[in-house]
Amino acid sequence: MELKELLAQVADGTMSIEAAEQELKQDSYEDLSFAKVDHSREARSGFPEVVFCERKTPDQTAQIMSAIYGRSGLVLGTRANAEHYEAVKAVLPDAVFHESAKIITVGEPKEQIGNVAICTAGTTDIPVAEEAALTAWMCGAEVHRYYDVGVAGIHRLLDQVEDIRKANAIVAVAGMEGALASVIGGLVNAPVVACPTSVGYGANFGGLSALLAMLNSCAAGTAVVNIDNGFGAGFMAAKVNRQTVKGKE
Amino acid sequence: MELKELLAQVADGTMSIEAAEQELKQDSYEDLSFAKVDHSREARSGFPEVVFCERKTPDQTAQIMSAIYGRSGLVLGTRANAEHYEAVKAVLPDAVFHESAKIITVGEPKEQIGNVAICTAGTTDIPVAEEAALTAWMCGAEVHRYYDVGVAGIHRLLDQVEDIRKANAIVAVAGMEGALASVIGGLVNAPVVACPTSVGYGANFGGLSALLAMLNSCAAGTAVVNIDNGFGAGFMAAKVNRQTVKGKE
Amino acid sequence: MELKELLAQVADGTMSIEAAEQELKQDSYEDLSFAKVDHSREARSGFPEVVFCERKTPDQTAQIMSAIYGRSGLVLGTRANAEHYEAVKAVLPDAVFHESAKIITVGEPKEQIGNVAICTAGTTDIPVAEEAALTAWMCGAEVHRYYDVGVAGIHRLLDQVEDIRKANAIVAVAGMEGALASVIGGLVNAPVVACPTSVGYGANFGGLSALLAMLNSCAAGTAVVNIDNGFGAGFMAAKVNRQTVKGKE
Amino acid sequence: MELKELLAQVADGTMSIEAAEQELKQDSYEDLSFAKVDHSREARSGFPEVVFCERKTPDQTAQIMSAIYGRSGLVLGTRANAEHYEAVKAVLPDAVFHESAKIITVGEPKEQIGNVAICTAGTTDIPVAEEAALTAWMCGAEVHRYYDVGVAGIHRLLDQVEDIRKANAIVAVAGMEGALASVIGGLVNAPVVACPTSVGYGANFGGLSALLAMLNSCAAGTAVVNIDNGFGAGFMAAKVNRQTVKGKE
Amino acid sequence: MELKELLAQVADGTMSIEAAEQELKQDSYEDLSFAKVDHSREARSGFPEVVFCERKTPDQTAQIMSAIYGRSGLVLGTRANAEHYEAVKAVLPDAVFHESAKIITVGEPKEQIGNVAICTAGTTDIPVAEEAALTAWMCGAEVHRYYDVGVAGIHRLLDQVEDIRKANAIVAVAGMEGALASVIGGLVNAPVVACPTSVGYGANFGGLSALLAMLNSCAAGTAVVNIDNGFGAGFMAAKVNRQTVKGKE
Amino acid sequence: MELKELLAQVADGTMSIEAAEQELKQDSYEDLSFAKVDHSREARSGFPEVVFCERKTPDQTAQIMSAIYGRSGLVLGTRANAEHYEAVKAVLPDAVFHESAKIITVGEPKEQIGNVAICTAGTTDIPVAEEAALTAWMCGAEVHRYYDVGVAGIHRLLDQVEDIRKANAIVAVAGMEGALASVIGGLVNAPVVACPTSVGYGANFGGLSALLAMLNSCAAGTAVVNIDNGFGAGFMAAKVNRQTVKGKE
Amino acid sequence: MELKELLAQVADGTMSIEAAEQELKQDSYEDLSFAKVDHSREARSGFPEVVFCERKTPDQTAQIMSAIYGRSGLVLGTRANAEHYEAVKAVLPDAVFHESAKIITVGEPKEQIGNVAICTAGTTDIPVAEEAALTAWMCGAEVHRYYDVGVAGIHRLLDQVEDIRKANAIVAVAGMEGALASVIGGLVNAPVVACPTSVGYGANFGGLSALLAMLNSCAAGTAVVNIDNGFGAGFMAAKVNRQTVKGKE
Amino acid sequence: MELKELLAQVADGTMSIEAAEQELKQDSYEDLSFAKVDHSREARSGFPEVVFCERKTPDQTAQIMSAIYGRSGLVLGTRANAEHYEAVKAVLPDAVFHESAKIITVGEPKEQIGNVAICTAGTTDIPVAEEAALTAWMCGAEVHRYYDVGVAGIHRLLDQVEDIRKANAIVAVAGMEGALASVIGGLVNAPVVACPTSVGYGANFGGLSALLAMLNSCAAGTAVVNIDNGFGAGFMAAKVNRQTVKGKE
Repeated sequence: MELKELLAQVADGTMSIEAAEQELKQDSYEDLSFAKVDHSREARSGFPEVVFCERKTPDQTAQIMSAIYGRSGLVLGTRANAEHYEAVKAVLPDAVFHESAKIITVGEPKEQIGNVAICTAGTTDIPVAEEAALTAWMCGAEVHRYYDVGVAGIHRLLDQVEDIRKANAIVAVAGMEGALASVIGGLVNAPVVACPTSVGYGANFGGLSALLAMLNSCAAGTAVVNIDNGFGAGFMAAKVNRQTVKGKE
Repeated sequence: MELKELLAQVADGTMSIEAAEQELKQDSYEDLSFAKVDHSREARSGFPEVVFCERKTPDQTAQIMSAIYGRSGLVLGTRANAEHYEAVKAVLPDAVFHESAKIITVGEPKEQIGNVAICTAGTTDIPVAEEAALTAWMCGAEVHRYYDVGVAGIHRLLDQVEDIRKANAIVAVAGMEGALASVIGGLVNAPVVACPTSVGYGANFGGLSALLAMLNSCAAGTAVVNIDNGFGAGFMAAKVNRQTVKGKE
Repeated sequence: MELKELLAQVADGTMSIEAAEQELKQDSYEDLSFAKVDHSREARSGFPEVVFCERKTPDQTAQIMSAIYGRSGLVLGTRANAEHYEAVKAVLPDAVFHESAKIITVGEPKEQIGNVAICTAGTTDIPVAEEAALTAWMCGAEVHRYYDVGVAGIHRLLDQVEDIRKANAIVAVAGMEGALASVIGGLVNAPVVACPTSVGYGANFGGLSALLAMLNSCAAGTAVVNIDNGFGAGFMAAKVNRQTVKGKE
Repeated sequence: MELKELLAQVADGTMSIEAAEQELKQDSYEDLSFAKVDHSREARSGFPEVVFCERKTPDQTAQIMSAIYGRSGLVLGTRANAEHYEAVKAVLPDAVFHESAKIITVGEPKEQIGNVAICTAGTTDIPVAEEAALTAWMCGAEVHRYYDVGVAGIHRLLDQVEDIRKANAIVAVAGMEGALASVIGGLVNAPVVACPTSVGYGANFGGLSALLAMLNSCAAGTAVVNIDNGFGAGFMAAKVNRQTVKGKE
Repeated sequence: MELKELLAQVADGTMSIEAAEQELKQDSYEDLSFAKVDHSREARSGFPEVVFCERKTPDQTAQIMSAIYGRSGLVLGTRANAEHYEAVKAVLPDAVFHESAKIITVGEPKEQIGNVAICTAGTTDIPVAEEAALTAWMCGAEVHRYYDVGVAGIHRLLDQVEDIRKANAIVAVAGMEGALASVIGGLVNAPVVACPTSVGYGANFGGLSALLAMLNSCAAGTAVVNIDNGFGAGFMAAKVNRQTVKGKE
Repeated sequence: MELKELLAQVADGTMSIEAAEQELKQDSYEDLSFAKVDHSREARSGFPEVVFCERKTPDQTAQIMSAIYGRSGLVLGTRANAEHYEAVKAVLPDAVFHESAKIITVGEPKEQIGNVAICTAGTTDIPVAEEAALTAWMCGAEVHRYYDVGVAGIHRLLDQVEDIRKANAIVAVAGMEGALASVIGGLVNAPVVACPTSVGYGANFGGLSALLAMLNSCAAGTAVVNIDNGFGAGFMAAKVNRQTVKGKE
Repeated sequence: MELKELLAQVADGTMSIEAAEQELKQDSYEDLSFAKVDHSREARSGFPEVVFCERKTPDQTAQIMSAIYGRSGLVLGTRANAEHYEAVKAVLPDAVFHESAKIITVGEPKEQIGNVAICTAGTTDIPVAEEAALTAWMCGAEVHRYYDVGVAGIHRLLDQVEDIRKANAIVAVAGMEGALASVIGGLVNAPVVACPTSVGYGANFGGLSALLAMLNSCAAGTAVVNIDNGFGAGFMAAKVNRQTVKGKE
Repeated sequence: MELKELLAQVADGTMSIEAAEQELKQDSYEDLSFAKVDHSREARSGFPEVVFCERKTPDQTAQIMSAIYGRSGLVLGTRANAEHYEAVKAVLPDAVFHESAKIITVGEPKEQIGNVAICTAGTTDIPVAEEAALTAWMCGAEVHRYYDVGVAGIHRLLDQVEDIRKANAIVAVAGMEGALASVIGGLVNAPVVACPTSVGYGANFGGLSALLAMLNSCAAGTAVVNIDNGFGAGFMAAKVNRQTVKGKE
């Protein structure tokens, strides 16, 4: 509603002051003192607030996830450990812990639409890829996995290109020299979300080598998320996938 | 065509050896000795090869752009200077030079569909933003500009949020602390392509401050391109925009 | 005015819809297409918008400074060169160019209150210090300069400490190893704003050595601005100075 | 006392040699062999020496804090762990351990004046924020906390802006992209002390992303302390707060 | 076989469709879901795929090494720990664990030809050197070790130069300032593969000092592998050694 | 000759003291005061000293190249500009200036043996590649060029792989993300010398992105030279090529 | 002995071939296979080889220290832990472990001459300072300690300056901003060896802040050793001290 | 004079108040407003203040050098250009400009004592070496130059070692991998001052490679100055040289 219209409705009594106040505040949140849970995030961004568990206490995590789940019936926690999981499970018995991906999910998505491809260069990139895959799945995407297709044996990738080309959005997860993102980017027309990982020998500097390589990709149609940020990659890909299937909502 | 089917057609004479060879080579290119012009890029990625002019000689640039234009009727050169332009104009008289964006375009896109929003934090970010805007436009997107809406005066952004929310893809261009990407990312649901610029005082280290900030954005649904890479940002946004309007092709 | 009260006034007709709309938009700005001049900045932050001239065209600079001056009767441009100045002078004949500080000022502050000390380690730090000094002066502070008092000859500093201690806020400008900030910080009780400069031999890496040194200062009561950011240092010091003299407004 | 006057008093016998020597040494300290406790720091900088416990042995910590407490009746230890605390408690039974902030306090401040606002972007920034809050409180400031108001859900911040504007000094604590400091800086007129934290995914490089972002803040009136240095931020804010209430002492 | 010829054979029935398909796929691999074992790597690069064990689970490691061994009768695992070894030994009882080199080998090379020299600057560089030595040995090279010949006592190196000069390829392993590579490079005519290690005090930054030194070597005929990457160095040297003895195969 | 044998010859008069002294000094050089021309380098390393012209005066360059040419009849200068060339040409009239490669050659190699492949990712990498190609040629290698075969259009590379596989050593020259080295490394069995270039947008940081990518290459059998160091890459490849054809000399 | 003379002696039989060979080898060492103990180091550099224990096994450490002690009657091991010590003590019962300095000494220096001052900024810098002090003492210097005299309370330093000025060489040990080196450097005329430590908050980056500060010191007559390298600092200071007392030997 | 004694003399009239004041201020300086010329530096550090000309205006430079020369009859300016020189020559006609070293000297040292060796790795390091040599000479040292003795042809260095060993202090100037410092450090017993230069190809990062290499030198008895800081190296070496000849003064 436009601001002018709202004010006109208040002026002529169509809308109560309280309703207008609520509408103007517009974005509501719940104050847990140590956290302000953002209940309007789903309305704004299409998915409920996601909880980054690392460095949060198990108890904080459980309270926040519980508050979100109570509103949305669906909640996702990333970078979780077993202690986080136990605290969450105590209040949300349906919680599931995906250990290698360090993800806690509660509830299941209503639909699985479209096609998001998650590719990794090697086996050791799989935990980050799983973070991406589960995130995309929670956001309602149908997910296809293509693991260990790095460029040291490029025939493994070329052999699957036709399938990968069917995806609406592609996540390329790679450490070391991160060449996978460029090679895929040169072979497909869907947007590629490149996710560098911290996998590698000495001078990868915690993923810096793959990050810089991906930022400098010679293949257009690629954008990059933070090192090891499978969540961000999966979320971005799911957004593109959703718009591709449903158009802009 | 599946490989097996192709070979079957060769075996039964439906397809000539020459046609099969061509089909198998599949991706063709033109060899100018100093460059191998990639004529199949449009088929693969949805847009003809784009020419990165910097460090190419004017003559090389003109030959490559001419070769591409001859096939596709549309060509884009980035990071061009006046000398590049003169050499290109000599062989392609319809060439247009967009000086602040350092872009040469020849030909016009067949359509302008959807809605791509290009936002900048400040006035000095505009050249990079124009590179993004012209790229997106060449790729067939309708482009809307929102310039100088940085967070030092956040009301300027909040005042335009409703319009920006209508876009299918958003490019956020910012230097210094790059906060614009996070703030927009928290307010919209379309994918945000964050483009850091090298604008700033001392410790921005050529755009590193904005780059790191954008990679670390707390707002999900954001991915990042290289510093000052307006082309990459515009291209990515145009792809998302196109899929949103037309679905996956 | 509280939101509830405003809405009540609209509801009972005390306030017109238009006035309420204006009030709610609250922060106004002027759209020059390439810039959105922030006319409410003075209300919000105590000083009109300051123009960062670098990378702006002379014409853009002149238009923006003119728009601000028209409202506030006072305007400051930083990182300006002679071309910027000529363009500004053409529309604002009272403009003054402080060349070594790269500052354009138009108008003079209404008052000069309190005491801001600007100290430098060496002679080559003076241009940055002058940027700080002129900024603080434009913001209404009385400014005292203590130049070339670096620690290689610490008696030069100790000799002036008693004067420096009288300041309400101190700006310490130093390149190389930036030790001045720590030494001053250990000798005074006013807040110290440390401003690293890019002055120095090889491994100062454009001011990084002084920046890191100042961030790691062992003397509490010190905070740091960006490398060569005299403007930021002078502005911060002027704010502290003003609150010290006038309390919170 | 001026040096000349002191010497005159010695010359005419008004002041004894011993008294003059003491006065000239001026700043006294206590030598514990492994530490020289700076008993004149309170006189010089307005607060007794603060003990950085990390890497000190529990015994060293206890001896130093005890020496300071004996003179000033108030002592603050930062970066302390449980072992430090036990050693301190053994000699100073009133010691209190603030575990998440890693702070030991002994004694309470005589007053709580003014208004210092401590804001965090997220829940995981709270330990650093508490270091800042307790430091400011020990230095005599009234402290107000605004936690988890980061820009991913900017309405949470906007909702509290009016309160935050009342503060004499504001500490903005944020990791990741550190945008909070710029957004607050653009909305208030009090000085903002930005404190980056090491919270975040891969390419935050131990807080570097937030640090660089804050140093490059487009909002004037902001200065930065070291990564995770809640103590430095709280101390700086308390100084500004004190001067705002009491003027320069 | 040339593509045209193959197609001609298919057309005239000399080759079956299935054989052609296989030939065209050309490079085969085995899909273990979490890994795609590259069985054609030996054909392509002269040695079977090598398994980088770090971050792989023991079970993944055992399955992959077993699959490779089944085909090639020889397999090498690097960066392995005792748990990896136990899992591998359970399925491949002939597995040997070289603990300080963190290498698992199964099978022995058919030959030991030529001469590869492995030199270290110090004793603490030996584990990385052993990774190189064992890799070169598995790849069929005769290996000679020259340990602790760093430049602080250059006579130790000069004393052995005549022997080192006999090698077909030389691996220079050094941490700290990495000078060994340059000094050897200036004394021999065989190619030198420089391998920086992370050995050293503070500002070696995890091997960066040696890496940069080696990249900047003033001695031509030197190339560098990643920090602590003994495997890469040994593999490269073995390739050069093999070509020197056998010519290009 | 072994030291013991030499001394025996001196003892029994077979060798004169002067000859022994000369032999023991062993490596001779010519002192030009500002340079000590290393005339024994050819004996030691298989090729005369190469002159790095950058930052040398034209006169120094000419004197050094002349001294080397006088002994070896062949001399190579790298990083030369037109002024260096003119000074050299004045004393060595046969000097040839290869402008884009910034190389001066005098004399021609006696033979062109084997096969060195020089590949580039893009057109803008050609100057560095030419430095490599001319260096390898001067060192007696037959050189084959494969330019603009980067991974954004990987069919251009795959189309030439069979030819590239015939080389005894391969130089892979690439900027941006440097993926070319890994992709080639995965497809061939000859040693690959990876040469990163400083070509690229913002976050390539002067070639750092390609350098790190190449150091982290997942393809074994690759080693790396310094950024833009075509000379080093060509020299290394020529050494491997020579040993492959002639064995160890 | 000059080379020519030696050869003449061999020629005329004055010197045996064996003696000449030994003389020419000149620098002898002992080969322990994993280490080549440099027994001529004392002759060359004035002190026996020092053992860097970190990453060496206890057994290696014991063998090397024992070999050195056997020749020189004095041996120093740095970066040692308790396990190293036990292994050394088993073979050298007189070994002493200086735990906080992580140093093992066996034997005592014959003299303590001159005056070396070891200063630290804080208490937490003491372990590194002790490494320096014990090293200097083992090298025969008389050592004076000035601990916790950092610039946050500069009167503590000024109070001791007269004593410090008496030293022949000064070691300044400091972390954080490392200002101590510059301040001392400005106050004394003896050479200052600056030793940065890794002590500090976030952006000290493992000692980088102090290292850069010290390298950029505005006070001439200062040189820097590696981060936390107390050994290097003490050794350098001892050399200067010795030459000052005894002249060049 | 001890403080107590001075005060006693004032008390009993032996010393006038004015004399005491002077003595207590102790270090005098001359205030040129833009510079505080430190006339007591010679007394404190053994040599008059040295003027760092870079970024100073020619006029500032001339005034400062003139003021110093007036007192000491000897003055040294570093990093000077032709304009600085002309301004200085106008007021000090005896000024001499050493162009490649960028040094202005006025006056000559009274003596040339001892032996300082200045070594460079290559010809392009000579300008920095000359800065060191002229500085040492101005400080009264006899200087010996050993240029172009880098490790790529180590016999050139070994050939001169016996001479270099005679020096009281050695400056090792090198770019690229900076190995010269370590190699010399292992061969001599005098203190070595290592001076990295910014000479080199790509990844030397402005001298960083040589700087890190030198800081990590495996040869004890070495300390490092800033990149390209010939002045600092020469000054340090001259101090050590002077103390070696004259003992501590």
